Amino acid sequence: MQAEILATGDEIRTGALVDSNSAHIAGMLEQNGIEVTRHQAVGDDLAMLVSIIGEISRRADVAVVTGGLGPTQDDLSSAAAAQAAGVELVEDQRALAEIEAFFSKRGRAMNPSNRKQALFPKGAACLYNALGTAPGFRISIGRCTFFFLPGVPHEMQAMLAEQVLPEVLRRQGGARAFRMTRVVSSFGLPESAVGEKVAAIGTVFPEIKLGLRAKFPEIQVKLYLNTADEANGQMILSQAVDWVAGQLEPHAFSVQERTLAEEVGDLLKQRGATLALAESCTGGLIADWLTNTAGSSDYFLLSAVTYANAAKIKVLGVSEDTLQRCGAVDEETARQMAEGARRAAGATYGLGVTGIAGPGGGSPEKPVGTVCLGLSDAEQCSSRKFTISFGRRLMNKRIFAMLALDFVRRRMLGKL
Amino acid sequence: MQAEILATGDEIRTGALVDSNSAHIAGMLEQNGIEVTRHQAVGDDLAMLVSIIGEISRRADVAVVTGGLGPTQDDLSSAAAAQAAGVELVEDQRALAEIEAFFSKRGRAMNPSNRKQALFPKGAACLYNALGTAPGFRISIGRCTFFFLPGVPHEMQAMLAEQVLPEVLRRQGGARAFRMTRVVSSFGLPESAVGEKVAAIGTVFPEIKLGLRAKFPEIQVKLYLNTADEANGQMILSQAVDWVAGQLEPHAFSVQERTLAEEVGDLLKQRGATLALAESCTGGLIADWLTNTAGSSDYFLLSAVTYANAAKIKVLGVSEDTLQRCGAVDEETARQMAEGARRAAGATYGLGVTGIAGPGGGSPEKPVGTVCLGLSDAEQCSSRKFTISFGRRLMNKRIFAMLALDFVRRRMLGKL
Repeated sequence: MQAEILATGDEIRTGALVDSNSAHIAGMLEQNGIEVTRHQAVGDDLAMLVSIIGEISRRADVAVVTGGLGPTQDDLSSAAAAQAAGVELVEDQRALAEIEAFFSKRGRAMNPSNRKQALFPKGAACLYNALGTAPGFRISIGRCTFFFLPGVPHEMQAMLAEQVLPEVLRRQGGARAFRMTRVVSSFGLPESAVGEKVAAIGTVFPEIKLGLRAKFPEIQVKLYLNTADEANGQMILSQAVDWVAGQLEPHAFSVQERTLAEEVGDLLKQRGATLALAESCTGGLIADWLTNTAGSSDYFLLSAVTYANAAKIKVLGVSEDTLQRCGAVDEETARQMAEGARRAAGATYGLGVTGIAGPGGGSPEKPVGTVCLGLSDAEQCSSRKFTISFGRRLMNKRIFAMLALDFVRRRMLGKL
Repeated sequence: MQAEILATGDEIRTGALVDSNSAHIAGMLEQNGIEVTRHQAVGDDLAMLVSIIGEISRRADVAVVTGGLGPTQDDLSSAAAAQAAGVELVEDQRALAEIEAFFSKRGRAMNPSNRKQALFPKGAACLYNALGTAPGFRISIGRCTFFFLPGVPHEMQAMLAEQVLPEVLRRQGGARAFRMTRVVSSFGLPESAVGEKVAAIGTVFPEIKLGLRAKFPEIQVKLYLNTADEANGQMILSQAVDWVAGQLEPHAFSVQERTLAEEVGDLLKQRGATLALAESCTGGLIADWLTNTAGSSDYFLLSAVTYANAAKIKVLGVSEDTLQRCGAVDEETARQMAEGARRAAGATYGLGVTGIAGPGGGSPEKPVGTVCLGLSDAEQCSSRKFTISFGRRLMNKRIFAMLALDFVRRRMLGKL
């Protein structure tokens, strides 16, 4: 079974937007044993769309098309599919009802232009979009079954997983080859060092293919296995994951594709512990990461993002004398920030982060990339200092936030 | 002059790698007035490559192909180009000399397999690669001039800028067409409503093409203009930008592709004003956004991310009675949070945000998506309440953060 992917929209055609949808779709199809032969992208041009849909209909068994299902005039996918199929556009009652329901659930009136989104080629089957106003549709043209999905990534991804893949697999039938993947996430080693530490995997697990991926600031080790025996494959992969994580100790933090913030959250929860932050250079990023997890209020109590020194003094009780003697970026200041946050919130742990994210604010003694961490609990208050600059403010903020979360993680695991 | 782009490689075909090269190439060509009509991506498959190069050679004037120039067996671009052109592969002496020089400059011996990288289709012209071992080449097939470049992004980008674009522009000759783009960013209206408000642009500015883009939670209106007269084009675009921004009042917040946080930062700076935040449901996201701008310490003093009620009381001075009577998600609580943050930091403005991002924590009276904002300065303290859920925690956090920043923006501009 051969599949093609078509991304539509002037934004992609002109390079204003990088098309990440096609890679996602290709990955999902390939993981399910469907061979992807070609990706294409074209703009919002009816004649071009009709022509390309026609080409694909003569070559592929399955095609996934993204974009062009919106309410505006430059959304042309439905019209193009109808022309390519030689049928007229008709209003799909189920689609219309769903668009109306989307708006009424949110207490809003449907805009007249949204009515256009219920126009499908005659004979098409509606694909439900639980997350947005643009339903998709399925239609057979030539030898190919086309799935038209919206371009908004999370809507597309949900519809692909819940409606497209099950239908494609049903059509494929027969024995299925499993392409299995596991990921070990690490932080703190450069990619080349990670590569060297896991280089021997080929002799230990010859059936596993390995790939490294720098997902800044993480380095992920991806393990691939192709097999027809799913249970045995899972077992081999689990052993290999443990081996890789062991090689990378203490830098491997997740074997389940979870973020460091999620791992720290779980460790806190397991211990019935709570965390309070005092952030300066990270500007709230650590708190944002922690609170992206539902239920984080169980263990996350406070982050005092004290950008101004006056706020460090007033909110956290950092000593004015320390700030004058040592400066805002200092291990003693970081310890006082940690202790101040811990006491203000009544938390088990207090974590203080102060540093220089750049581009300005550096000095010969404290260059951009300097960061001081303080970590306090009822028994002790310790600190760490790092100088590690990636040259860009946003990258430095992320590195600093990871260093800080890793400090707490390793304290809880006794791996400092 | 019409251009196509072809990315090659199994990593891209199978979705293991997102192809960002094609967007970069498209952007550079379009900016130089060359229309890009189609992107394609295929794997390391000789027959497929030959067939697609043949198709492109009958349609396009110019094509840029990336990848497949390396030393290994699955690097097939040169062989495919030779087959499609009907010529043999020959060793290019200039290319060979450059590959040898690349290694000797680094004090390394050339690997025998690298010799393959100097094999080009007969009649091709070598494109020098200053940054890697893979030279590229230019060859005419059918009506189309092909530029074959390596897939490594920074090598490809340098060769595109220094060797491909000058040659393409030379061939295009005559008057250069400018493709100009401007963007108006808006927040607070659904895409369909934005579309309706700017639908008349075709009658006011017939030369301008319009595109809408949902860059959640912003809706961007993109204005495109192709012209040979750059100065006049800029003038027309500026007028059109003003017209669009006027149609979208008070929802348009930037005409320079800036974030709402950057705009709010600038407005504060212009007024010599400062901001302190009290965040609950946004979990530090607003502070993170504000501190992504270098120099934000000029106007951003504090964010108290008070997830726990005890922290709201202790750090912000929210009244325990209010929390018990009204709850954490309430306009009175939001006002007290705003005022508490403003006073703790000695800021001009205090902004309080408390709501329910979900998925848990909702009730019939206060469903997920409920958010209360408080905004205080020396003269007044006001509040707003919204219920607007996008069904996912991270989206709700973003919407809440945008609503809060927009509250401050409109207060400063007198547009509440």
